[in-house]
Order: sequence, then C-alpha cells, then structure tokens
Amino acid sequence: MLNSKYEACIQACSNCAIVCETCAASCLREDDVKMMARCIELDRDCADLCALAATLMTRDSTLAKEMCRICAQACRECGEECGKHQMDHCQACAEACRKCAEECEKMAA
Amino acid sequence: MLNSKYEACIQACSNCAIVCETCAASCLREDDVKMMARCIELDRDCADLCALAATLMTRDSTLAKEMCRICAQACRECGEECGKHQMDHCQACAEACRKCAEECEKMAA
Amino acid sequence: MLNSKYEACIQACSNCAIVCETCAASCLREDDVKMMARCIELDRDCADLCALAATLMTRDSTLAKEMCRICAQACRECGEECGKHQMDHCQACAEACRKCAEECEKMAA
Amino acid sequence: MLNSKYEACIQACSNCAIVCETCAASCLREDDVKMMARCIELDRDCADLCALAATLMTRDSTLAKEMCRICAQACRECGEECGKHQMDHCQACAEACRKCAEECEKMAA
Repeated sequence: MLNSKYEACIQACSNCAIVCETCAASCLREDDVKMMARCIELDRDCADLCALAATLMTRDSTLAKEMCRICAQACRECGEECGKHQMDHCQACAEACRKCAEECEKMAA
Repeated sequence: MLNSKYEACIQACSNCAIVCETCAASCLREDDVKMMARCIELDRDCADLCALAATLMTRDSTLAKEMCRICAQACRECGEECGKHQMDHCQACAEACRKCAEECEKMAA
Repeated sequence: MLNSKYEACIQACSNCAIVCETCAASCLREDDVKMMARCIELDRDCADLCALAATLMTRDSTLAKEMCRICAQACRECGEECGKHQMDHCQACAEACRKCAEECEKMAA
Repeated sequence: MLNSKYEACIQACSNCAIVCETCAASCLREDDVKMMARCIELDRDCADLCALAATLMTRDSTLAKEMCRICAQACRECGEECGKHQMDHCQACAEACRKCAEECEKMAA
C-alpha cells in the first residue's frame, strides 16, 4: 500500500488527535476551566495538526515530512502543558503527545 | 462553475466557521472561562460542521443538503448560546450563526 | 472517559477515514483514473464525514448521533462503489465502509 | 479582535481552500481525468493546508507562522500545476494560489 512506510506515524498521529480532542472536551467540563485554558488551546491545535499530518502521510503527499515537523512541535508543547495536570485525560494526552512527537521527529528527519 | 448555485450558503458557512473559531479562541482568553465553557463547546462543533458543509457544497456532493440540515441545527444552538453573552465576539458569532442557519435551512429544504 | 461509550464507533470512523483517504490517493495513481472518478469523489466525502463523526463523538457532542446518521449514508454509498472495483485498496475500503456503516447505524438508532 | 492582524491572510487562505476544492471537484468531472490527476492531488493538499492555516491564524496560535510557511509551499506547487491547464477552474485556482502564497509568505517572514 502506498503509505505502509508511514504506518507507525499515521497511527500515532491518528491516536494523538483523538486523545487531544478527548482532553480538550474533558478540560472544558472540569470545575476549574480557567486553569485548563492553555491546555485546551494547545489540545485543539495539536489535534488538528495531528489529523492533517495523518491525512498527508496517508496520501503520500510531498509535504508530509514538513507537516510532521510542525506536528512534532505541537505535540511537544501540548504534552508539556498536559504533563503539568494530574487528571487522567491530561496524563493520557501527555503520553500520546510524547509518542506522536517521537514518530513525527523520525519522519521529519 | 459546478457550485455557483450554492454560493450564498458556501460563503455563509465559510464565514461562520471563522467567526465561531474566533469566538472560541476569544472565550478561552476571557477572565471567567467557566461561564463560557458551553459557548466554547458549541463554537467548536459549529465551526467544524460549517467548514465541512462548505466543503461538501463546494464539491457538489450528494450529501451537501443533509450536511446543511445538521449544520443549521448547530448554528441555531450555538447562536442561541452566544446571544446570551455581551462580548463583541459572542454577539458577532450569534449574528453569523443566525445568517448561516437561514442559508442552510434554505439549502436543506 | 467521557466518550468511552462511543469507543467502537470512534475507532471504526477513524479507521474508515484513513482507508478512504488511502483509496482516493491510490485511485488517483491508477492507469485508468477516469474509471475511478466516482470512487474518488465518494472516498473524499466519506473520509471527511468519518473524521468529523469521530471528532464529534470524541467530544460527546449533542450532534454526534445526527452526524453518525449521515456518515452511515456516506459509508454505504462509498462502500457500494468501492465494492465494484477489484483493486486491493478498493476492496479494503469497501470492507472498512461496511463496518463503519454498521457502527454508525447503531449509534444513530 | 484577537486575529485582526491576520485578516488579509485568513481571507486569502479561506478563499484558496474553497477554490482548490472547486478545482479538484471540477477536474474529477473532466473528460480526461488522467491528465488532471496531479492537479487533483495538489488541490486536495493545498485546500486542507489552507483551511488549517486559516484556522490557526483565527485562533492566534503560536504555530500559525510555521503553518503559513508550509501553506505557501503548497500554494506555489499547486498554482504552478494549475497554471498549466486552460480550464477556467484551473486558471482561477492558479490565481488564488498565487495570492495566498504571497500572503502566507508575508506572514511567515
């Protein structure tokens, strides 16, 4: 298949997009939303960048590598913020972001 | 052009998507984020549904009408919530949602 | 987690989005692209609808059910077209669409 | 408004996304689809990258500039391919891509 070489990174991005969306939606329902505002901002950007990175790899696009480079930046920033919060959704998101950043950095190399 | 018949609705959806994104991002930077949590949730869904409705009309998709029907629901719900808040970004969003709902309802009829 | 009740459908939609993107990209590289034109059109719509359905379920959106209903229609139409073509990417897509339609129909019920 | 500084670039990206979608859909309905296959591939990537660039600027995201840089690359590549074809949808797309590339390059500078 045309994109089998990207398989691990596509899966990591696809998973990270869902976990970031879950984290944003969960943060919005926390009692202290104010404390989570930056986390929500980063979750949203990270989710959208991961989704598009997965899509461009799936298409074997010439811009897939570039997209993975910026996606890795988003994952690093989002994972760092999520890592500061003790809620399960934030901890799960920090972990998904870390894995996705690693895969994207390999791709972009 | 294949989608000129949808022109007004494509523009309304495209505009509403941007205005909803702006409203969500602005709500996240308000002092009282908690009060805006539901607004942010609805903004996000409405923005994404408007964007896809615009895309499907642009493609002259057989599912464009169905998509406009659900998009109109999102716009009505989001516009009602935004209308409750006095900030400029919420009032602008309420207005964009109202216009977009009307165009989408015409399309879906 | 707020969306664990949708887990199976989120996975089916997320997978179907990727398989549809793969199919569209592969169809575009076939010798006889003309024969695949309708397949590509349906793949694109189905991929985008599946992706948004997965996102709305992930957010536990009030419009998730409605979105799954229209997503099921897209999957049925796309799966039927893909089923006509013998290439591996089309057969894989027909299967992913069938599974996703079933999950979405359960959700929308 | 938080994103008024990006206004011209948001509008250029938002417009380019729609024009690229229109071009891809129109190319898929041409008699000689084979000749348009590369144009369709580039249209799809460019449309999705423009849409996300517009969204990230709308959110005043820290990654908006980076996204505009990659978006400009997509626009240059897509506009060059579209410029080779005489159909109205391709010529309109070449023009929208050129304008969007210029705005994105200013943003990324």
